Amino acid sequence: MLKIKSVAIDTFKENVVYLHRDCPLYRTEDFQALMKIEISVKKNDTPILAVLNIVDDTSIVNIDELGLSTQAFKQLNKKQGVKVQIAPAQPPISLAAVHKKIAGETLNKEDFQLICQDILENRYSKMEIAAFLVACSHSGLEREEIFFLTKAMVESGKKLNWGESIVVDKHCIGGIPGNRTTMIIMPIVAAHGMLMPKTSSRAITSPAGTADTMEVLAKVDLSIERMKNIVQKHRGMLSWGGTAKLAPVDDILICVERPLAMDSTGQLVASILSKKIAAGSTHLLIDIPVGPSAKVHQNLDALKLRKLFEYIGDLFGLHIEVVFSDGSQPIGNGIGPGLEARDVMQVLSNQKHAPSDLREKSLRLAGRILEFDPDVRGGQGYVIARDILESGRAYEKMQDIIEAQGRQEITKNKARFEHNVLASTAGYIHAIDNLKISTIASLAGAPIDKISGIDLHKKVGDKVNKGDILFTIYADFNSNFGFATEFANDNEAYTLKSTRPVEHDNYFI
Amino acid sequence: MLKIKSVAIDTFKENVVYLHRDCPLYRTEDFQALMKIEISVKKNDTPILAVLNIVDDTSIVNIDELGLSTQAFKQLNKKQGVKVQIAPAQPPISLAAVHKKIAGETLNKEDFQLICQDILENRYSKMEIAAFLVACSHSGLEREEIFFLTKAMVESGKKLNWGESIVVDKHCIGGIPGNRTTMIIMPIVAAHGMLMPKTSSRAITSPAGTADTMEVLAKVDLSIERMKNIVQKHRGMLSWGGTAKLAPVDDILICVERPLAMDSTGQLVASILSKKIAAGSTHLLIDIPVGPSAKVHQNLDALKLRKLFEYIGDLFGLHIEVVFSDGSQPIGNGIGPGLEARDVMQVLSNQKHAPSDLREKSLRLAGRILEFDPDVRGGQGYVIARDILESGRAYEKMQDIIEAQGRQEITKNKARFEHNVLASTAGYIHAIDNLKISTIASLAGAPIDKISGIDLHKKVGDKVNKGDILFTIYADFNSNFGFATEFANDNEAYTLKSTRPVEHDNYFI
Repeated sequence: MLKIKSVAIDTFKENVVYLHRDCPLYRTEDFQALMKIEISVKKNDTPILAVLNIVDDTSIVNIDELGLSTQAFKQLNKKQGVKVQIAPAQPPISLAAVHKKIAGETLNKEDFQLICQDILENRYSKMEIAAFLVACSHSGLEREEIFFLTKAMVESGKKLNWGESIVVDKHCIGGIPGNRTTMIIMPIVAAHGMLMPKTSSRAITSPAGTADTMEVLAKVDLSIERMKNIVQKHRGMLSWGGTAKLAPVDDILICVERPLAMDSTGQLVASILSKKIAAGSTHLLIDIPVGPSAKVHQNLDALKLRKLFEYIGDLFGLHIEVVFSDGSQPIGNGIGPGLEARDVMQVLSNQKHAPSDLREKSLRLAGRILEFDPDVRGGQGYVIARDILESGRAYEKMQDIIEAQGRQEITKNKARFEHNVLASTAGYIHAIDNLKISTIASLAGAPIDKISGIDLHKKVGDKVNKGDILFTIYADFNSNFGFATEFANDNEAYTLKSTRPVEHDNYFI
Repeated sequence: MLKIKSVAIDTFKENVVYLHRDCPLYRTEDFQALMKIEISVKKNDTPILAVLNIVDDTSIVNIDELGLSTQAFKQLNKKQGVKVQIAPAQPPISLAAVHKKIAGETLNKEDFQLICQDILENRYSKMEIAAFLVACSHSGLEREEIFFLTKAMVESGKKLNWGESIVVDKHCIGGIPGNRTTMIIMPIVAAHGMLMPKTSSRAITSPAGTADTMEVLAKVDLSIERMKNIVQKHRGMLSWGGTAKLAPVDDILICVERPLAMDSTGQLVASILSKKIAAGSTHLLIDIPVGPSAKVHQNLDALKLRKLFEYIGDLFGLHIEVVFSDGSQPIGNGIGPGLEARDVMQVLSNQKHAPSDLREKSLRLAGRILEFDPDVRGGQGYVIARDILESGRAYEKMQDIIEAQGRQEITKNKARFEHNVLASTAGYIHAIDNLKISTIASLAGAPIDKISGIDLHKKVGDKVNKGDILFTIYADFNSNFGFATEFANDNEAYTLKSTRPVEHDNYFI
C-alpha cells in the first residue's frame, strides 16, 4: 500500500493525486487511459475519486507515496503517512442516463436523482458534467424533466424552515453589472415587517455577487443559528448562502456552466428554484432583464422563461411572480463590491446624487414584493416602498442588520490605480455592453479587491462631447490594471451615435 | 516577470502551470475564475495556454517562479529560468460557433475551420471539447456539416501522397475485441501487388490497436521517408500513424470522446475519413460490425452509417465500400497485443488450430479489397485471397515487411499470472459481451503489457459443461491481476442458455 502525502497544490474543484512513475506497487501507465482512480484506506470504505498525475521527481512524491492535492487531502481526511490502496475508477452508473439524454431521450425522476448523487460524490469529471449540461441545454429538457432535476437538486442538500407562512425572496437571473437592488429591497421589505431572510451567492465569473457587496459592509459568513436569531429580531438578513449547503449539486454544475458560458433555460430554472426552495422561501419575485447584451434578448424568450418558472413553482407550491426589466445597460454607476455598496448606501440614505435607475428599479421590485402581503392593496406597493425609503426607515433597518451581522471595518477607500476611458467622438450613448463592462471590472480585480472595478459616468441617453469621461477603471494591483485597461482599449463598451436614442418603455416594471 | 521552472508532473494532454500563492507579481486569486492563462516570453509572441494550479510549497515553485508541467514545458520550448509573463486567457473565438451548435443551428465551413484551429492550438479545455462533441452528437450534424468538419480536420495536418492511382485502405469502426484482420489482409493485398501503405492507431481505451499488435513483431514508429521506401519495395507496410501527424485534431477529440464513451455518427465518420484522406488513400473498405454489444446494434443503423460514409467519400473523390459483419462476439481467440499477434501468425502460416473466424473474415474482407483491382473479376476476390494465403505468399510477404520495418525481439512469452474463468453451469454459449471482455483485458494490463490479456477457449454456439474453461486471464503485474480477476468475478461476460442458439446469416460478408 502507498503512504499518503499532502502536496500543497491547489487544484480548485477537482481532486488530483500524484504518483511517482517508478512506483513499485502500481504501474502508472495502467491508469493513463482510465483517467480517474479510486483511493481508499480499507477495502470496503467508500473511496474518494481523483484524477491521476504522474511525477518524475522524488522531492514531490517518493516512489512509495501517493501525493494528494489540497482538495483530495481534505476530502480523504486522514493523516500524512496513512496507507491507502488505489484502483481504476469505474465510470459512474448514471452516465448511462446522460447518454440517453444525449441520444434525445426523456429522463425520469430516478435518472436525475442518480445523476445528482454521482455529481455530489465527485464521481463526474468536468467533461462529464459538461456533457450532461450540453445534453440538457436548448430545448433539451421537457418541463417535467426540469421538475425532476429541480427536485433532485433540492434533495441533494439541506432545507431551511423559518416557521412562517410568508417567507419572501427575490432573484434576478443575472447578467447585468451593478444592479444591486437586493440590498435596497431587503431593508424596505423587512422594515414593512415581512420576513426576508436573504441568502445570496458570491460572484463566480461576474465582478460582484450580492454576498460580495454586502461583505463590504457586514459579515456574511453566518451560521444557520445566527441567521435565525438575526431574522427573528430584524425580519431581514443578507448572508452568503454557501454555509447553508443549499442544493450543493448546483454549486458543482455552476463551476462548469460559467466557464462554458452555458446558461440553458432548463438548468437556469432548476438552479434558481432549487436554491430558493431549499432556502425555505414561499413567495418569490423573479427579475428577468431583457436587452441585447443581457441573458435574455427578446420579450418573447422572457415570456417563455416566465411560464417555465410558474409551472415549476406551482408544482412545489412556491408562489412566483416574474417581472421583466430593462437590461440594455448596467444598473447604478459602480461595478465591483465597494463601488456597488457605495451606490446602495447612497440610495438608502436618500442622497441627491444617488443613482436614480438603481433607486427606481429597487422601489418597483420592492413594491411588488410588498404586494405579497395580503393586507397591501394591489398597486399600492410602490408607494409604501417609497415612503419606507424616504422616511429613512429602510436606512435604519439596514444599519441594524449590519450591526447584527457584524459591521466590517472599511480599511481602504480608494484603489491605487485609476484610468479614465474617454469618448472618442461626440454624440449620444445608445448602448452599454453588459458583458464587456463585466469583463473589464473582473480583470481590474473585482470582486477579490473590494475597491476595484468601474465607475460609470455616462449612461444610455446621455449626450457627450469628444474627450468626456465615459467611465473610470479602478485597480489596486499593477497586473490587474494592465489587464483591464488593455481590454478596455481593445473593446469598445459604449456605442455612440449622432442621433438621440428612442426611449423604450415595454417592460412590466 | 516570472522565471520558468520545469516541474516533473505529467498532466497528460493538458498543460498545467504552477504559481506560488505568495507570488508578488500576480495575485493567484485573480486567475481562479478565469480558468486558463496565457504564457508568453515576449509581448507579441503567440502564447501557450495552460490551466493554473496554486502552490503553497516553495520546494515546488518559488514565489518568483512559474512551474510548468512536462507538457507545458515541452510546448513552450524554452530553457529553465527564462522569464515569462502571464495573462488571463480570453475564451477561444470559435466558442461562439459551439454555442450556435448547442442552440441547434447549422454551422458553416468557416465555423468548423475556426473550431479545429482553436482545438489544435490547445485553446479548448476538455470541458469545452466535451461541449462541442455533445452538441454535434446524435442527429446534431447535417451531412454537409460532417463534410465541413472532415475537411477542416484533414486541413489541420499533413497529407501523404503515394503517387499511384490506386492506394487501398481498410478500416473497422471498432468495438470488437481481437478482430485483428488488417494484419492478415495487408500482406495478402500487397502480395497481389496492390499498394496498401497502412497507418494504424494505438489503443486508447481498448486492449489493443493494430499498431500495438504489429509492434509485437516489428517496429512501427517509422519516418515518412522510411514508410515510402518500404512501400516502394514491398507494396505494403503497417506503421503507427502518429508520426505522420495526419488529422491531428482528431487525436485531441478522441482523448475526450473515449473517456466519455461518445461515439456519435458524425464524429465517427469525420474521424475515420479525415485520417484516410490525409493518409492518401483512394479506395477504402469499411467494416461495420453489428451486434448487441458492438458499436452498431441494428442493420438499420448500419445502413444509415453506410450512406453517410458514401456521401462524404464521394465529395472527396474517395472510393468507399462498406461491409457489415457479425459483431456478436470477439473475433479470434486472443485479446491483447501478444495474444492477437499469435492468432494472426497462426492464420498467416496456415496452422490447423488457427482461429477460423479470424481467417474467414480476413479472407472475405481481403477479397473485397482485391476487387478494387480493375483486373479482378467481380466475385473472384475471395478465391484469389485464399490462394495467396494458402500458398504461403501472404506469410512470406509479412515476413519481408517485418524484416523491412525492423523485427522485434520477443523477450517474454508468458505472463506471470493466469486465472481461468469457468462455466458456472452447463449449456450453449449464446453471446460474449464485447465491452466486458475489453474491460477485463484492459485491466489485465493490455496493451501496455504486450503479453497480458485474455485467451478465449469457447465461442458463441459452443456447448460447455459446468466447470469448463471459458477464458483465461493473463497478467504480468500483481495489481493488474487483481483488478482484472475482480472485474471478471463481478461481471459475467458470457451468456449461457440450455438451448442451442439459432445461427444468423444476415451480413453481407
